[in-house]
Amino acid sequence: MFFHVQKLINEIIPDEPDPAAANALQEGLGGQFGEMRTMMQYLFQSFNFRGKAKPYLDLIQGIGTEEISHVELLATTINHLLDGSPRYQDKPAEAAPGNGATPLNIALSQGNIQHFLVGAQGAMPVDSSGNPWSGSYVYNSGNLTLDLIYNLMLEATGRLQKCRMYEMTSNKTARSTISYLIVRDQAHENAYAKALETLGVNWGKVLPIPNFDATRFPEVKKLMDQGLHNQQYHWRIDGSEMSKIFRGDSPSRDGQLQVPAKAPDGVPFTPSAERREEFSPGLTPEIMKLVEQVAQLQ
Amino acid sequence: MFFHVQKLINEIIPDEPDPAAANALQEGLGGQFGEMRTMMQYLFQSFNFRGKAKPYLDLIQGIGTEEISHVELLATTINHLLDGSPRYQDKPAEAAPGNGATPLNIALSQGNIQHFLVGAQGAMPVDSSGNPWSGSYVYNSGNLTLDLIYNLMLEATGRLQKCRMYEMTSNKTARSTISYLIVRDQAHENAYAKALETLGVNWGKVLPIPNFDATRFPEVKKLMDQGLHNQQYHWRIDGSEMSKIFRGDSPSRDGQLQVPAKAPDGVPFTPSAERREEFSPGLTPEIMKLVEQVAQLQ
Amino acid sequence: MFFHVQKLINEIIPDEPDPAAANALQEGLGGQFGEMRTMMQYLFQSFNFRGKAKPYLDLIQGIGTEEISHVELLATTINHLLDGSPRYQDKPAEAAPGNGATPLNIALSQGNIQHFLVGAQGAMPVDSSGNPWSGSYVYNSGNLTLDLIYNLMLEATGRLQKCRMYEMTSNKTARSTISYLIVRDQAHENAYAKALETLGVNWGKVLPIPNFDATRFPEVKKLMDQGLHNQQYHWRIDGSEMSKIFRGDSPSRDGQLQVPAKAPDGVPFTPSAERREEFSPGLTPEIMKLVEQVAQLQ
Amino acid sequence: MFFHVQKLINEIIPDEPDPAAANALQEGLGGQFGEMRTMMQYLFQSFNFRGKAKPYLDLIQGIGTEEISHVELLATTINHLLDGSPRYQDKPAEAAPGNGATPLNIALSQGNIQHFLVGAQGAMPVDSSGNPWSGSYVYNSGNLTLDLIYNLMLEATGRLQKCRMYEMTSNKTARSTISYLIVRDQAHENAYAKALETLGVNWGKVLPIPNFDATRFPEVKKLMDQGLHNQQYHWRIDGSEMSKIFRGDSPSRDGQLQVPAKAPDGVPFTPSAERREEFSPGLTPEIMKLVEQVAQLQ
Amino acid sequence: MFFHVQKLINEIIPDEPDPAAANALQEGLGGQFGEMRTMMQYLFQSFNFRGKAKPYLDLIQGIGTEEISHVELLATTINHLLDGSPRYQDKPAEAAPGNGATPLNIALSQGNIQHFLVGAQGAMPVDSSGNPWSGSYVYNSGNLTLDLIYNLMLEATGRLQKCRMYEMTSNKTARSTISYLIVRDQAHENAYAKALETLGVNWGKVLPIPNFDATRFPEVKKLMDQGLHNQQYHWRIDGSEMSKIFRGDSPSRDGQLQVPAKAPDGVPFTPSAERREEFSPGLTPEIMKLVEQVAQLQ
Amino acid sequence: MFFHVQKLINEIIPDEPDPAAANALQEGLGGQFGEMRTMMQYLFQSFNFRGKAKPYLDLIQGIGTEEISHVELLATTINHLLDGSPRYQDKPAEAAPGNGATPLNIALSQGNIQHFLVGAQGAMPVDSSGNPWSGSYVYNSGNLTLDLIYNLMLEATGRLQKCRMYEMTSNKTARSTISYLIVRDQAHENAYAKALETLGVNWGKVLPIPNFDATRFPEVKKLMDQGLHNQQYHWRIDGSEMSKIFRGDSPSRDGQLQVPAKAPDGVPFTPSAERREEFSPGLTPEIMKLVEQVAQLQ
Repeated sequence: MFFHVQKLINEIIPDEPDPAAANALQEGLGGQFGEMRTMMQYLFQSFNFRGKAKPYLDLIQGIGTEEISHVELLATTINHLLDGSPRYQDKPAEAAPGNGATPLNIALSQGNIQHFLVGAQGAMPVDSSGNPWSGSYVYNSGNLTLDLIYNLMLEATGRLQKCRMYEMTSNKTARSTISYLIVRDQAHENAYAKALETLGVNWGKVLPIPNFDATRFPEVKKLMDQGLHNQQYHWRIDGSEMSKIFRGDSPSRDGQLQVPAKAPDGVPFTPSAERREEFSPGLTPEIMKLVEQVAQLQ
Repeated sequence: MFFHVQKLINEIIPDEPDPAAANALQEGLGGQFGEMRTMMQYLFQSFNFRGKAKPYLDLIQGIGTEEISHVELLATTINHLLDGSPRYQDKPAEAAPGNGATPLNIALSQGNIQHFLVGAQGAMPVDSSGNPWSGSYVYNSGNLTLDLIYNLMLEATGRLQKCRMYEMTSNKTARSTISYLIVRDQAHENAYAKALETLGVNWGKVLPIPNFDATRFPEVKKLMDQGLHNQQYHWRIDGSEMSKIFRGDSPSRDGQLQVPAKAPDGVPFTPSAERREEFSPGLTPEIMKLVEQVAQLQ
Repeated sequence: MFFHVQKLINEIIPDEPDPAAANALQEGLGGQFGEMRTMMQYLFQSFNFRGKAKPYLDLIQGIGTEEISHVELLATTINHLLDGSPRYQDKPAEAAPGNGATPLNIALSQGNIQHFLVGAQGAMPVDSSGNPWSGSYVYNSGNLTLDLIYNLMLEATGRLQKCRMYEMTSNKTARSTISYLIVRDQAHENAYAKALETLGVNWGKVLPIPNFDATRFPEVKKLMDQGLHNQQYHWRIDGSEMSKIFRGDSPSRDGQLQVPAKAPDGVPFTPSAERREEFSPGLTPEIMKLVEQVAQLQ
Repeated sequence: MFFHVQKLINEIIPDEPDPAAANALQEGLGGQFGEMRTMMQYLFQSFNFRGKAKPYLDLIQGIGTEEISHVELLATTINHLLDGSPRYQDKPAEAAPGNGATPLNIALSQGNIQHFLVGAQGAMPVDSSGNPWSGSYVYNSGNLTLDLIYNLMLEATGRLQKCRMYEMTSNKTARSTISYLIVRDQAHENAYAKALETLGVNWGKVLPIPNFDATRFPEVKKLMDQGLHNQQYHWRIDGSEMSKIFRGDSPSRDGQLQVPAKAPDGVPFTPSAERREEFSPGLTPEIMKLVEQVAQLQ
Repeated sequence: MFFHVQKLINEIIPDEPDPAAANALQEGLGGQFGEMRTMMQYLFQSFNFRGKAKPYLDLIQGIGTEEISHVELLATTINHLLDGSPRYQDKPAEAAPGNGATPLNIALSQGNIQHFLVGAQGAMPVDSSGNPWSGSYVYNSGNLTLDLIYNLMLEATGRLQKCRMYEMTSNKTARSTISYLIVRDQAHENAYAKALETLGVNWGKVLPIPNFDATRFPEVKKLMDQGLHNQQYHWRIDGSEMSKIFRGDSPSRDGQLQVPAKAPDGVPFTPSAERREEFSPGLTPEIMKLVEQVAQLQ
Repeated sequence: MFFHVQKLINEIIPDEPDPAAANALQEGLGGQFGEMRTMMQYLFQSFNFRGKAKPYLDLIQGIGTEEISHVELLATTINHLLDGSPRYQDKPAEAAPGNGATPLNIALSQGNIQHFLVGAQGAMPVDSSGNPWSGSYVYNSGNLTLDLIYNLMLEATGRLQKCRMYEMTSNKTARSTISYLIVRDQAHENAYAKALETLGVNWGKVLPIPNFDATRFPEVKKLMDQGLHNQQYHWRIDGSEMSKIFRGDSPSRDGQLQVPAKAPDGVPFTPSAERREEFSPGLTPEIMKLVEQVAQLQ
């Protein structure tokens, strides 16, 4: 059973809208190596888990639960990058449809046109080429060693792609979430690498992948200085055996693995504002009054 | 942010394995109108929600969170229907590969061969024809009225398909989950229908869809007698405004809507047993000892 | 602009339902070389036609219009093959859901389960493996010679597949439509082959493809005796220049091509009966009364 | 059976070519909520219709037939927006391939490159992201209430997307067809909403969706002043019972529904000119002579 | 540049046709972890290889070249399992179409119907569920460590699936190729594992995956007794540096790695016989005479 | 069995990088009518070949083998067009990630973003719209006449698309490979056209398609002057009967068909350089030393 707190797992720094950057981030959300995939893959591996190796189940499922919050964070970040990108400054006379205006003209030349045409300046479950997410991405062979190797490779690929994304844009909104995920992907790499170490593998010096000094990215450095790449919360209300694996020397050879005692506080979530040119939410003043009456109920 | 309790949202009744029934249930898990889709659709609608109609956001997101637990329940049910279906009775000499035996021969004639060949007798993110789940299923127009109408239609279609599934098999494992979901889909139909009522729509007597006396299905009757089709828990740790909408007369005209004060207790989840003919988890005795050492750590 | 007469282009012979045969016919409806594809391909080629070769446009578009009627015929045939296939004989007590009955049990072992689970014992836009029809099938290069060669190949492949289908089943319902389409595909092969002859190609003795004595199929023989494989109506209310091409010796070397003066009479179309186990149309007696009032309006 | 008149259902206003606008219109043609989908969905619902509610069958099938003409209109509009977009002004020396010229260079930076590379400056069955149309879009549950709700939602989504398209471009060619379809989608919304009203639903004030004053779009206003949003022709040569439903107060609360006595006159269709840089139709002068001889036949 | 010898890389043992087993083998040919995928993945990794680590390039490309021969072997094996499966014993009177016979009736109940309907009793580029092979399967991150880990995981998954296939059928034709590929996949696992060992990884005792005594499969034992799982030919006419990596202790801890001095001899390839019920090759006696004249040319 | 020489089948002329041109060439590599498709189609047709017409088998398989080398050539050309396209001139301080630089910013506005984000400035198995290559493209009906007609159409479409590509860019790297493939596609058109001539077809003057004076493209002229469009090597180490068909007058009416006695020499292949901003190959100096030790082994 899953529960929700209406908060974000990390802060999104405000900056100008940028639909091209939003499109790059779609790879991290709905791409083959993005957060929807890690989430679904780990949940399926947990639901179909076989045998008595409970700490391994708890590790995979705990990371899988975190990934739902990553989907939430990344979708919200893309939403912020898109929201208001037409740059009419939301002046009523211009934003409202009519009068020959073309408030959505930007959609024809920037990022993914469907962000404006199919969605209402919001995230979609597609990759950066507009291909929809596919269930064929989910890997769950049932062989524990193999599933762990795949998961390690998956997190490393996610981290690689996010490092490349970082180099594509200097937008602060985009970079705040990209940097956070670079660090979390490393934590997850470490988790799966450590699980394989308990089965007898020795990674030598190949980890983390990509193998470089990530503190050269200032936003990443700040989070690594807090040791976030070597921490993994379990996201379980009823306790977890994850820490039997996630402990001791980090496979990325830069600290000690640790399961924090409690969940992060989270950051308040605020829905985006109305966008009249998208007819979203698109309620007439008359119906809006009914909605307000509902909102005032006790 | 999302949290997990390692329990199932409803009990799965034990019965014989049945891979053909398992395949039918895949439509409810990975089909176009299945639980992965409702889950993803409501989460995207929540993350991209626009405007100030908070009770509507809380309603959609609360149902979306429940759907993750439905994915968990349905995947586990399919897993149970597949597990051991080769019927070699798990006698070591037969289950273990070798000696010319064909313990997986059943895969050639029953259900979806990939359940045995790609997965290890476990659920997959595909529909009953083996088509992978697609991100193109997710509907999120950003127009609130339209999203609510779609969601109502989606739940009604889910309920319709599950009623048809019920008529395909008398397997108790399959029917326990099918029946539970028939009732929950009705609750969700009621939720979206009620939200539209607050905007001024009057449904007359067309609800619920499909429109028939569902208590003719005995397992469904038992749950409806408990009023489960008119209840909707919010699944929020930090409170919810869902009950401002989900209250009063039920749109299916058979009771009063109610948001329960607390979450269901849940039912313990136990991982399935090792299946040697699937090499799952596939650890050698030597490596299994390492795993047991991990499990005994404090 | 398109117009409709609610009649079928050919008669469907009644026989027992047969969901496995229905599934084979799906290849002819929603497969890569089926009728949805010929229809869409010829319509796109017509809408995008370039240059002044009007008889060629009229030929392609006329055949394209006929293909819509083939989609109608084939969908209806599949519908008839599925309708009532559960063989409960439509006895109310059994057909109605409830009482532990499993009236749809057949769906687990015959044909495509989605015919019963997603559809209500009706045709779907998928192929015989359950893959949905794809827009990527449509070929429209804009090069007239090439489009004509492709169309010839397409019709020949359609005819080949239907000849194979004929050999898969002796069901009369299935064979009546299969045989009709074998003959019509030959007519269309002849049309495109003839168009290429006007550009200077000589087909020798390779046509029709597949190249064999099709009168060995008795149902086909009956239609060929009427010369149906060398006729092509234009389906145009405002006249057509198609007959400037479709005339003279048939490229299949068995007669003279001819554009008939008028359209076939057609065969009455009757909607299938209610199926309660599918909740189709699923109206309660109360609402059925409202529908009947509408039907009695003038 | 279907028939054709080689005319367009509405006039396309000439303007400059604009491949980026052409790409936006592809969403309306081959997108998930575009005209190919409404066409196929309503035709499948008609072919698989169950029960005796004939006016409902005639309504769905009549609209489905109109949609084929919308596919024709939209494909032709896209064709016009693409045709000549390379802007070499069709001067023979430049348009003809060779001499190091790059007459198709525009394809690398505007709209969908496949419009120039796979097609010959013509429409394709894909959406605005280049994803091919899929048969999985077609919804046909067999439950009449549910199919009608889906159809209403589908038309409203189509109208929503076309309103957004309107705001993306001021090109007159694009807007003439977009505006026409905004109005026709409203008519179809009204048709399905009215059908649901006959089953007892009361829509209050939520229709049409999106709910705003569409006369703020001048091209739309012109058509609405003619009442086109409350008219629905039946497109049947053999008569129709559609008007038993489509009558009385419009669900969009702005007039009376009416089935006109006769079909629109239509607008002449002229094939686009040869494009040598696309090798379309690509006939040599030698072969063109053969074609001209065919064209002069009686 | 690639060259061909018209021989198979391993012998296919004759046995009865078996279309259900043929369908299982499709997973190994066109599935996500099948031979088309390994072939394409390694070729793309080679063509896009970066940097100066030539032995690694030669290793990946050499295995990629071998995979083309595996595609050839597996396609031919499937072909043999399908060929003649209708069991009419190829008696002319029955095999030939006509006379009301249904020589292809088996297609409705065994394996993949498209093997008989779309293909002519021959292999197709699809998986065991009928899903077409997809380019999205190909993994080529450009990061060498990551590509090697993925390749190791890919070969291990291929081996896992083939071990499961082995347990599904005792057909000798199927098992001869399955067993050969189990052994070759282990050799490729060893190749990538060894390459990672040169970068400093120590695999401990987790290899090979699946980790069990494969000599329990008698056909596999025979090949392993020859050491085939620790050999890797380079398939290069112009020499290769592969052996700088593929040498020394095998990562599967059961021998020494070795690059043989010369390619295997190969096994003669004979095209399958004509199948008249498939119209394949479908030449009339008249045209067959022309073909024979061609065959007699010098 | 297949063998490899690490050389390219034709020279790639150096020029500036150009990611938009690279994207256009993807249609020729991974598009529906590109080289991956011709390669796979001819190989499947060969593996499934039926009957005794060996020269036809050798013709199809010989061309299929050449197509693997075309995939190699085209992938390498795309790689060259992408490599270094960010134009930071590979100055260490800029190319290395960090310091707030955005060395990959170009990815947001040019060509296919996945070339930089998923791949490391290298070719991918997708078309110019980013759609992955699909196994559904492969056509293999088993009917020899039909397969030959399809292959002719396929080569003509490939040639048509490459002629359009030529007109999109004047980049010399792109044009060197495009021009070579225009000429080779014509040779393959001739091969299949000639094979059909042996069955009795007479093509008149419609070939080659597209039918124009291709020597107007100077790079093409150079190759046609060498007669490359009428030559076809067999790519077989063990001899071939291809020349029994590929001889005599060319169907494109501009020379004599000829099978050369020996394979082309080929052009040396050099892997691309390291790209640090892509982390490709991404080895640390420490690990690079291990790699160098491997490279120095004998």
